Amino acid sequence: MYESLFEVLTSDEAYYVKPNPLRHPLIFYYGHTNTFFINKLVLAGLIPQRVNPQFESMFAVGVDEMGWDDVNESNYTWPTPAEVRAYRARVRQVVDDLISTLPFHLPIDWNSPWWPVLMGIEHERIHLETSSVLIRQHALQYVQPHPDWAPWPRQDVPAPPNSLVAIPARDIQLTKSTDHYGWDNEYGQFKAHSPAFEAAKYLTSNAEFLHFVEAGGYQKEEYWLEEGLAWRKYAQAEHPTFWLKQDDGWKLRLMTEEVDMPWSWPVEVNYHEAKAFCHWLSEQTGKPVRLPTEHEWVSLYEHAGLSDEKVAGSMNANLFLDHFASSCPVDQFAHGELFDVVGNVWQWTETPIFPFDGFQVHPLYDDFTTPTFDGRHNLIKGGSWISTGNEALKSARYAFRRHFFQHAGFRYMVTDTPIAENASHYESDKLLSEYAEFHYGDSYFGVPNFSKALSDYAIQHLQSRPAGKALDLGCATGRATFELARHFDHVTGIDFSARFIGLALKLAQQGVVRYTMATEGDLVSYQERSLAALGLNEVVDKVDFWQGDACNLKPQFTGYDFILAANLIDRLYSPRQFLSAIHERLNIGGVLMIASPYTWLEEHTPREEWIGGYKKDGENVTTLDGLKAILGQHFSLMQPPVDIPFVIRETNHKFQHTLSEVTLWERTS
Amino acid sequence: MYESLFEVLTSDEAYYVKPNPLRHPLIFYYGHTNTFFINKLVLAGLIPQRVNPQFESMFAVGVDEMGWDDVNESNYTWPTPAEVRAYRARVRQVVDDLISTLPFHLPIDWNSPWWPVLMGIEHERIHLETSSVLIRQHALQYVQPHPDWAPWPRQDVPAPPNSLVAIPARDIQLTKSTDHYGWDNEYGQFKAHSPAFEAAKYLTSNAEFLHFVEAGGYQKEEYWLEEGLAWRKYAQAEHPTFWLKQDDGWKLRLMTEEVDMPWSWPVEVNYHEAKAFCHWLSEQTGKPVRLPTEHEWVSLYEHAGLSDEKVAGSMNANLFLDHFASSCPVDQFAHGELFDVVGNVWQWTETPIFPFDGFQVHPLYDDFTTPTFDGRHNLIKGGSWISTGNEALKSARYAFRRHFFQHAGFRYMVTDTPIAENASHYESDKLLSEYAEFHYGDSYFGVPNFSKALSDYAIQHLQSRPAGKALDLGCATGRATFELARHFDHVTGIDFSARFIGLALKLAQQGVVRYTMATEGDLVSYQERSLAALGLNEVVDKVDFWQGDACNLKPQFTGYDFILAANLIDRLYSPRQFLSAIHERLNIGGVLMIASPYTWLEEHTPREEWIGGYKKDGENVTTLDGLKAILGQHFSLMQPPVDIPFVIRETNHKFQHTLSEVTLWERTS
Repeated sequence: MYESLFEVLTSDEAYYVKPNPLRHPLIFYYGHTNTFFINKLVLAGLIPQRVNPQFESMFAVGVDEMGWDDVNESNYTWPTPAEVRAYRARVRQVVDDLISTLPFHLPIDWNSPWWPVLMGIEHERIHLETSSVLIRQHALQYVQPHPDWAPWPRQDVPAPPNSLVAIPARDIQLTKSTDHYGWDNEYGQFKAHSPAFEAAKYLTSNAEFLHFVEAGGYQKEEYWLEEGLAWRKYAQAEHPTFWLKQDDGWKLRLMTEEVDMPWSWPVEVNYHEAKAFCHWLSEQTGKPVRLPTEHEWVSLYEHAGLSDEKVAGSMNANLFLDHFASSCPVDQFAHGELFDVVGNVWQWTETPIFPFDGFQVHPLYDDFTTPTFDGRHNLIKGGSWISTGNEALKSARYAFRRHFFQHAGFRYMVTDTPIAENASHYESDKLLSEYAEFHYGDSYFGVPNFSKALSDYAIQHLQSRPAGKALDLGCATGRATFELARHFDHVTGIDFSARFIGLALKLAQQGVVRYTMATEGDLVSYQERSLAALGLNEVVDKVDFWQGDACNLKPQFTGYDFILAANLIDRLYSPRQFLSAIHERLNIGGVLMIASPYTWLEEHTPREEWIGGYKKDGENVTTLDGLKAILGQHFSLMQPPVDIPFVIRETNHKFQHTLSEVTLWERTS
Repeated sequence: MYESLFEVLTSDEAYYVKPNPLRHPLIFYYGHTNTFFINKLVLAGLIPQRVNPQFESMFAVGVDEMGWDDVNESNYTWPTPAEVRAYRARVRQVVDDLISTLPFHLPIDWNSPWWPVLMGIEHERIHLETSSVLIRQHALQYVQPHPDWAPWPRQDVPAPPNSLVAIPARDIQLTKSTDHYGWDNEYGQFKAHSPAFEAAKYLTSNAEFLHFVEAGGYQKEEYWLEEGLAWRKYAQAEHPTFWLKQDDGWKLRLMTEEVDMPWSWPVEVNYHEAKAFCHWLSEQTGKPVRLPTEHEWVSLYEHAGLSDEKVAGSMNANLFLDHFASSCPVDQFAHGELFDVVGNVWQWTETPIFPFDGFQVHPLYDDFTTPTFDGRHNLIKGGSWISTGNEALKSARYAFRRHFFQHAGFRYMVTDTPIAENASHYESDKLLSEYAEFHYGDSYFGVPNFSKALSDYAIQHLQSRPAGKALDLGCATGRATFELARHFDHVTGIDFSARFIGLALKLAQQGVVRYTMATEGDLVSYQERSLAALGLNEVVDKVDFWQGDACNLKPQFTGYDFILAANLIDRLYSPRQFLSAIHERLNIGGVLMIASPYTWLEEHTPREEWIGGYKKDGENVTTLDGLKAILGQHFSLMQPPVDIPFVIRETNHKFQHTLSEVTLWERTS
């Protein structure tokens, strides 16, 4: 099929001339899918050696479009199409040999050797579609009609007038069993409530979109989002990119030819154009028009009574290459009250792709999705006429930059429901992600979670004392704050670092935090941690977080029954100032807990401010001596100090392993 | 007794005027011994509070003489002698109360509460003596005769002519049971062989020394060591410091008076003067004259048939204040064939104080000796007329700067035996001492010694392969080099760092290494590690150490059966260069062992030189991938990698805990 697609090219030159200045020429895509296959099989240890190391370096990277705002011309010396064709045949032989000898067991899960085989097949399906788009962008001289790739024959059907269909409220749950092949982003759990809304019966047709074009929609800046406007100015777009305005009227560029505009076919636009259309339509109708979110699209799908099983093999959608090699009229395939809920063209959504709870990256392809968790890649749903395999499933989650072109259009909807934001950011700041792992991550060397151990120790020794307000000073990313809230009515976390507080707040608000962890050199792994998994989601309402200075606390932070200062005192610029005044924040009988490895460093604490770790009058003064001297006036030490260990992971081989000395001090006066 | 000593002072002014410009005035020493007592009792937790915190800060530090070459005038506002006397009385009361209530148990060891009490008493004994020297340096107007401190009455006895006594060879062993009170430096073990030598029958008398003075010995630079010459020029010394040249002849300054020179008494000089005398006498006699070392003095002691028991109570030495408050004739007290082996005046030795094997510092007084392990403090032996208690014992090891004055003189000896050097240096460079502890120190978190674990793992997997030459590349402070020498005929350790190699060499040469370890802030503890304790003393002859560059090894390092590269590759500037050429150093069938946490850092290895830990052609390349690719041509991987952990201690609370991935590679071509 992929071979056949490239047969529409008219010459070797057609392989080398870029159809799109921001993308590699087609020769790259011709070789790429096979190189991908070999790379993954080598990585999985399924084949002993490469087929062509030179090609497999050249064809490995460069799929993604460069940003239109950061074009970077590189020089490539590509092989000939014949050489690549021969390479493809050799790879095909290697893969066929592998398939014929590889023992077959169900289920095919992440650990199955068949997984990378399926990955290679599905990967080529994606490039079948994206290459068809590039071919559609190629100059006509480089392409020719081909019997396998003939467009829908009836192009002069009139477009039906669109109308709105009421979609009832629905609870949406998205998940995918790891027994079935998919891309990493499809797994995990997502739940949302979709309130009732109205949806367009049809995808927006070329005819319907013409009103927007003729109304000067491309020229009126108020219809465009800031990012969309920047794209429109760069592209100097005045109408959809595959539309051609000629003397005898509008034409449409298909894969290998230009045809009179098929007005009944869905318009193909990027997200910005679709969004501008919605703004125009809102203005026209006075109604809140926008695109569906991902889960609202699922609501349409379920409203239409669809399922993967029903769609597959029914031939009742312009999907799977079941019909012709182009779009078709928007009223051709009814799905319940709606048309083209799947197939024909992809449908832009309002939703930047995000990881479902429980997202994990597949070790053989750890950058399939993670680079797109940037809030700039919106999901498209439903598949197009050329979508096959995984692409055509309900669960498929493909996302592209919002200015990008696929065979994609849109269905508009009317609703007041705001668009919920989904956290997709992976924290990659080294210190923040180390702390996130330290507070919410795995145990190493059998050392229990430090924040939890501190909290448990405190609660055990506080016994029946009042458990009203607690303060976690130097809370960093907040784990102890949450843990203490299991016992106290309310816990406030304060840290000097707004970045640390930001992560704690995010976790409180979204229940989940994601970060990358250094494994070796520049390599990272991807982590997701949720309050729910730690049994802490029920205490979220009992905590708050503030940025603040332990040496200069704001007046409102007072009246506490318990104050924790964990790994704090040896990071303060004036620990004496902090220790001398902290009793004012505690109720009489309240308890101050200090945990510290006493790692005095001049970079944090000027030497003259150290409260121990030096000689005075010839004698050793330890930090514990200093604590006793400073706290003695208002506190009594409740019991002998204990060491509680903690481990901070730096890489998968390197760790800090530290003992924090813990003392409990009761305020006596 | 101490009170009585200060009664020789004539006025309050006598307390404030400095007898010696390099020392505090006597008021400091008057208060100091009591402050010391209180400080140690507080530190030991034996008394709940200080007697006078202000005094106890003022009188705590400043005993040591400032270097005569770095005089630093400070301003002090001292209390009156009456105030200090009152303070002393209060402290006396506190100590008496403590002694009368403290339960008494034998033995009094380091953990006994009586130890700090004895420490306070012994400390005052020392200052009784040093204060008597300061009083002797005071201007006559400030001192007065006192019945308790009358000098030896017969000062006009003629000096006996000196002669040499043959002392046979003797094996010397020094040790002290920790059941008996002593200073830290007296404990541990020391063994030495003392070949036969001749020793002067008498201490050098004033009469004998006069020959040197009259021969212009102070003026002739060739008699003086470089350090001694510098002192002599600074002090403008032309004769012993307590000698006075007056119109009617030589006088001698005693504690409270000047008397006609008692020629038969021992001359009192510092080490430099004694040494210059020896050089002069060598020139005169053509014999190799020098001072005894510490163990040679012990040889004299044993030759004389002395013991602490015999000396104490016999009244047969000018010691313990048994007689008068001054020296006496050198022929007064015979000890076997010799005179004044103990007592009269201290005897300078050639030996800079050094720690015996097994030296440990007492936690209550960790800077009694350690600051003097600098090669600049020579031991004096035998005690003087005012030495009492511990000072008067055979085991006593007091040491002073070589230009310093005590009631000290010397006995010369004739020998060809060179003076052995004793290691006294405590390595305090942070990185070096961390590595010394890492290689030769304690286990932490139950993680076994890394170098030993690597060596054991290697030996286990090498089985019956040839065990000729091995190379430990990046050997650091050398533990694995020694460990491998248990198995191989010869092991060479090479490291880029001359400092690391220096420590390994020192250990190989001296069998022992000493270093300080950071505990908390600036505080340190003192460590001593010996090859013997690790069972490695028998392999010393099988190792050598060289400074070298693993990426550019000298040609002679080749023909090995085994090469270890532990925690090396991620510290090289070009690991690829190293890995590509290392097979040339190994015999065919030989084994390369690589252990590394793969901690790639640009500060050590430019990013383009990393052999893993990055993405290439879109795929993760681990360091193991890189090793396989580079080593594949000449090596085969013997078995799957294993992680071997190691711990590096930074403070008593903070550790690096790292996993080093270990791979064994057999050279196949």
